[in-house]
Amino acid sequence: MTTQNIWFQTSVTRLTDPQNQRVWSLIVSLFGDLAQQPGDRISGGALTRIIQPMGIKPEAMRVALHRLRKDGWIESTRSGRASVHFLTDFGRAQSAKVTPRIYNRAPEIPKDWHILIAEDGPGIHTLDDLLLAENYISIGRTVALGSGPLPKNCDDLVAFEATARSVPDWLKTRLCPPDLILACKDLRDAAKSVTQNRPQDAHPTAWEIAALRTLLIHRWRRVVLRHPGLPRAFFPSGWAGPDCRFEVFRLLDTLSFPTLDALNKLD
Amino acid sequence: MTTQNIWFQTSVTRLTDPQNQRVWSLIVSLFGDLAQQPGDRISGGALTRIIQPMGIKPEAMRVALHRLRKDGWIESTRSGRASVHFLTDFGRAQSAKVTPRIYNRAPEIPKDWHILIAEDGPGIHTLDDLLLAENYISIGRTVALGSGPLPKNCDDLVAFEATARSVPDWLKTRLCPPDLILACKDLRDAAKSVTQNRPQDAHPTAWEIAALRTLLIHRWRRVVLRHPGLPRAFFPSGWAGPDCRFEVFRLLDTLSFPTLDALNKLD
Repeated sequence: MTTQNIWFQTSVTRLTDPQNQRVWSLIVSLFGDLAQQPGDRISGGALTRIIQPMGIKPEAMRVALHRLRKDGWIESTRSGRASVHFLTDFGRAQSAKVTPRIYNRAPEIPKDWHILIAEDGPGIHTLDDLLLAENYISIGRTVALGSGPLPKNCDDLVAFEATARSVPDWLKTRLCPPDLILACKDLRDAAKSVTQNRPQDAHPTAWEIAALRTLLIHRWRRVVLRHPGLPRAFFPSGWAGPDCRFEVFRLLDTLSFPTLDALNKLD
Repeated sequence: MTTQNIWFQTSVTRLTDPQNQRVWSLIVSLFGDLAQQPGDRISGGALTRIIQPMGIKPEAMRVALHRLRKDGWIESTRSGRASVHFLTDFGRAQSAKVTPRIYNRAPEIPKDWHILIAEDGPGIHTLDDLLLAENYISIGRTVALGSGPLPKNCDDLVAFEATARSVPDWLKTRLCPPDLILACKDLRDAAKSVTQNRPQDAHPTAWEIAALRTLLIHRWRRVVLRHPGLPRAFFPSGWAGPDCRFEVFRLLDTLSFPTLDALNKLD
């Protein structure tokens, strides 16, 4: 094995999410990163080359693709003797919805926050709808925190412009539970180690780059989408969010986006 | 009956609270208004002269005084052949606590509000304690609204500086229920009518003045202490709070505080 091969294999191990290696979810991350545009297609051969080094068996990949087709995320077709896969409109829409949050390397923390308070009882439904559909953060059963202008159709909620003055531990822990704090630290350390150990003469293949990007984005997605974009005061001590984001994008910048042509070519 | 007598009797009727004529509570209002200072005493004879025109029988007054002594509000003693009554330290402290709110003719609405949010569960106790002891307004089970600096010992509550943006009807109704709205309007109309119908040459006695003041303050107390000092936006349409306050103090200004000597003198 060359130094590069060792680095690549070690990196795959480092970047593999210890918590979640569900193949269908990994493929969603892969398409979201590499083939999110209309017309983007990835051949079965390319998928195999990207995913196999992660220790995922072809059978597991076929099962995952089957599930994603059944759930309406992915369509598959044939081009000559080769199969090709692409996101459906639904899959693309789902992907596009979270892309801005995943790929934002320097998110601005909103300055204008508001609190919505529901009446105990039937009024709670308006709040529940907002929590599901909009970017609101629940602070207890009847209270939600959000940023920007007040939502429409919330006439039955009390609304206050609000600036945090004191955030107790129970809320910090609710917003960032211990497993999320740990996942964030682990990813930071993993990304940092992959960046630091890369040999100067490493020239990973398009598929290797795609594999590392997929693992990195997949794991980052599961950290970044779980924590709200709140001011620093809301996070527990030991929260490595900003460092983690820094390391994720530092590594991503060294893994230049491979072209689909390069991935799909038969070599 | 003279014009003045008719006016006095009509005024007593107008100012009598249709909801609450509990004698002991009326006596608390009376002492709070006329004899709140240490050393202030009111003779049994004066009490009778003030209270009898309200249609309260001597027996009812004796029962009320007995209860107030038992509850530690009032002490009674004898001075020669006459009995005299005065507030205990406890009674005076209770009275003093609400006096600023009752007699404030132009209360300033605080500008700096904050919201405290408790965790569902044990954390609720901190909030309950604040609601009982401090000037907080409950907005649902886990949320309280207050003004001024944050309270001490509230580390387990989330605190936000807050400015109201939208107040739904359910909260307005909770803060000012229909019976309070009605009580406020009725008192406004009663006070206005007493002022307007006063004959130009009326010279009520010290006891008559004391009776009218007692009835007015007693009823106002039951309106003003029930509604929180919140910005206008929190009150339902039809809320007559400011008008009522205006009429109460307009009338009170025409009922010059009688001296205790004048009340206690034997004539």
